[in-house]
Amino acid sequence: MNKKDTANALISVKREPVVEKATAFAPVNFALAKYWGKRDEELMLPVTSSFSVAIDAGTTTTLCQAHDCDIVELNGKRVEKSSSFYVRLIAFLDLFRPSPSFFFSVSTINTIPTAAGLASSASGFAALVLSLNTFFGWNLSQKNLSILARLGSGSASRSIYPGFVLWNKGERKDGMDSFSEPFDHWWDELRFGIYVVSKEKKYIDSRSAMQRTVTTSPLYAFWPEIVDNDISHIQKAIKQKEFSLFGTTIEQNALAMHATMFTTEPPVCYWKEETLSTIQRIWKARGEGLGVFFTMDAGPNIKMLFLEEQEKDVCRLFPDLSLLPLLA
Amino acid sequence: MNKKDTANALISVKREPVVEKATAFAPVNFALAKYWGKRDEELMLPVTSSFSVAIDAGTTTTLCQAHDCDIVELNGKRVEKSSSFYVRLIAFLDLFRPSPSFFFSVSTINTIPTAAGLASSASGFAALVLSLNTFFGWNLSQKNLSILARLGSGSASRSIYPGFVLWNKGERKDGMDSFSEPFDHWWDELRFGIYVVSKEKKYIDSRSAMQRTVTTSPLYAFWPEIVDNDISHIQKAIKQKEFSLFGTTIEQNALAMHATMFTTEPPVCYWKEETLSTIQRIWKARGEGLGVFFTMDAGPNIKMLFLEEQEKDVCRLFPDLSLLPLLA
Repeated sequence: MNKKDTANALISVKREPVVEKATAFAPVNFALAKYWGKRDEELMLPVTSSFSVAIDAGTTTTLCQAHDCDIVELNGKRVEKSSSFYVRLIAFLDLFRPSPSFFFSVSTINTIPTAAGLASSASGFAALVLSLNTFFGWNLSQKNLSILARLGSGSASRSIYPGFVLWNKGERKDGMDSFSEPFDHWWDELRFGIYVVSKEKKYIDSRSAMQRTVTTSPLYAFWPEIVDNDISHIQKAIKQKEFSLFGTTIEQNALAMHATMFTTEPPVCYWKEETLSTIQRIWKARGEGLGVFFTMDAGPNIKMLFLEEQEKDVCRLFPDLSLLPLLA
Repeated sequence: MNKKDTANALISVKREPVVEKATAFAPVNFALAKYWGKRDEELMLPVTSSFSVAIDAGTTTTLCQAHDCDIVELNGKRVEKSSSFYVRLIAFLDLFRPSPSFFFSVSTINTIPTAAGLASSASGFAALVLSLNTFFGWNLSQKNLSILARLGSGSASRSIYPGFVLWNKGERKDGMDSFSEPFDHWWDELRFGIYVVSKEKKYIDSRSAMQRTVTTSPLYAFWPEIVDNDISHIQKAIKQKEFSLFGTTIEQNALAMHATMFTTEPPVCYWKEETLSTIQRIWKARGEGLGVFFTMDAGPNIKMLFLEEQEKDVCRLFPDLSLLPLLA
C-alpha cells in the first residue's frame, strides 16, 4: 500500500474541479495524549491512538486551478520551488491531480501566532484536504477527510475537527480504520497558554526523533500501554470535569514521551535549562495550591493548562505566557 | 515478620561478645541498575533486583562493650542521642543485644570524600554488621551478613562485598532469599568520577521519594521489567567488555528511574539546571566520540563512567570531576 492507493480507494473517479476556487480553514491542534511513533512510515499509521484539542487559530487555504505550472503562496508570498514546504505540498497534490497537465494554485494564510511555536503542518494539510474536497466536489465524510489529511501529516487527521479529537490508531494495514473523530464533550472553563522557551530551530526534527525513539528506546515498549491508559483517563476527566486527573494525566503523558526520547541512542533531549526551571516552577506553584499543569511536544516549549478561575493567578506567575483560546 | 524475626532466625543463640573489640570496613557502593521501590518496608525487601559496583572508600566501624549506656561516635565526635543517625543505629543494635542491660560503644570512621555526595548508610550498616559478626563470633556466611545488613539499609546488603554485586530481590515473604552476591568478573579499565552539582540537603529524602513513586507513578508498573533487562545487559557487557552496551544501559536505567519520579503525585525532580546541562554536555561529547556515560541516584549529582584510555579527555572536559577508584 502507498498513499496513492489510499487516495484512489477514497476518490474513485478522478475529476475536474466543480468550482473555480475553494477556501477552507482548519484549526491547529495539540495533543493531550501524544502521537509518538509510526507503525507505517509511508501511510503515516501511528503505533498508538492519540487525543487532542483544537486552538482557535490555524490555516486557511484557497485552492484554484493555475494555467501552466503549480504556484504556492504562503501568507501572500510566493514559495520557492526548492523549499521543503513546496516539495511536500506538491507531492501531496500529486495524489489528486486529474491529469499530469493539471496544475494548482495554492494560497495559504496562517493565523497561528508565530511566537507560539506551534506546528502548522497539521492545520495546513487539514485545510488543504478540506479545500480539495470542495474544489473537486468529492463530498467525502469527515472520517475519510481525516484519512486523507493523515497522508500529508499524521496529526493533520485531528485538525479536521474543532474541540477534543480522538485519532484512532486502527489495526488495518491499509490504514482505512486509522481516522479521527470528535469527542463529544466540551470544557468551557479550560484555558491554555504557551510559554516559549526557545524559538530556535530544533536540532533534530520531530519526525526523525520519533523514528529514532521507536527503533532504539527500550522504554518505547511500554509507550502503547501508557497512552491507552492516559486516553481513557483524559476522556473520563473531561466528562466528569475532574481537572486534577486531567492535568496529572496530560503531564505524565508528555513526561513519559520525553523519557522515551532521553533513552534513545543517541539520546534526544529538547529540554533547555529554562524548560526544566519552568517545569519546576509549575510544580512548586501547584504545591502551593495553583491548578496549573503542562504538556510539551517535541520541542523545548511548555504548554500550560488551567481553569478560568485561576487564569489571573497563572498569568501573574508567568507574565510571558501567551494565552490562546481553545476552539469548541 | 519483622526485623527481630529475621535476626533471630539467623542468630539462633544470643551470646556475649567473644572479643573485647571488633573492627570492620565496608565499601560504599553505587548502583548501575537501581534499587528503586520496596515490596516490604519493614524488612527492606526490594521490588526488583539491583546491581552495583564498590568504591575504594567507605566506613570503618569499631565495636566494643560499654558500661552503663550506648555511646556512638562518628569521625571521633560523640553523636547526639536526638539525632536520626543515633536513633537508627541504636534501633538496629537493639536487634542483637544479648540482654537489655547490654550496651554498645560504636565508633565509626567515614573515609568517603565529603564532597562526593555519596550515601554513607550502605557502607555504615555493612561495616556495623561485619564488626558485630566478629564481636559476637557469629561466623555467619556473607550471604547471611548481607541479609542482616539489608535490615539496616537496603543497599547495605550490597556493601558486604567489593567489586560488582548483585542484590537478588528474592520472592519469599520472610526475605531469606533477598541477599547480595558477588558478580565474578572485573573490569580493570573502568573509571569513575563524580560531578557534584549541589551539596544542598535534598528537598525530599530518597526513602520518601521511593515510596511515593511506588504508590503513585503510572510508569512504575514498567520498572521491574526495565531493571530485569538492564541487569542482564550490564552483566553481559561486563563479561564481554562491551563498554558501549554497558554505558548505554546504566544511563537508560538511571533516566528511567528519574522518569518514574517525574511522574509521581506530586512530582519528584532532583535535577537542577546544571544537572540537565551536564547531561547534555555528556551527550554532546559522546556525539563527538568520547566514551563517557553517566548514572544518577536520587539526587542532582552526576556519576560518570568511562575507560582508562579516555580518562584524560574526560577530565579535560570536566575539570571539576572527582575521580574515585573502584574497588575490585
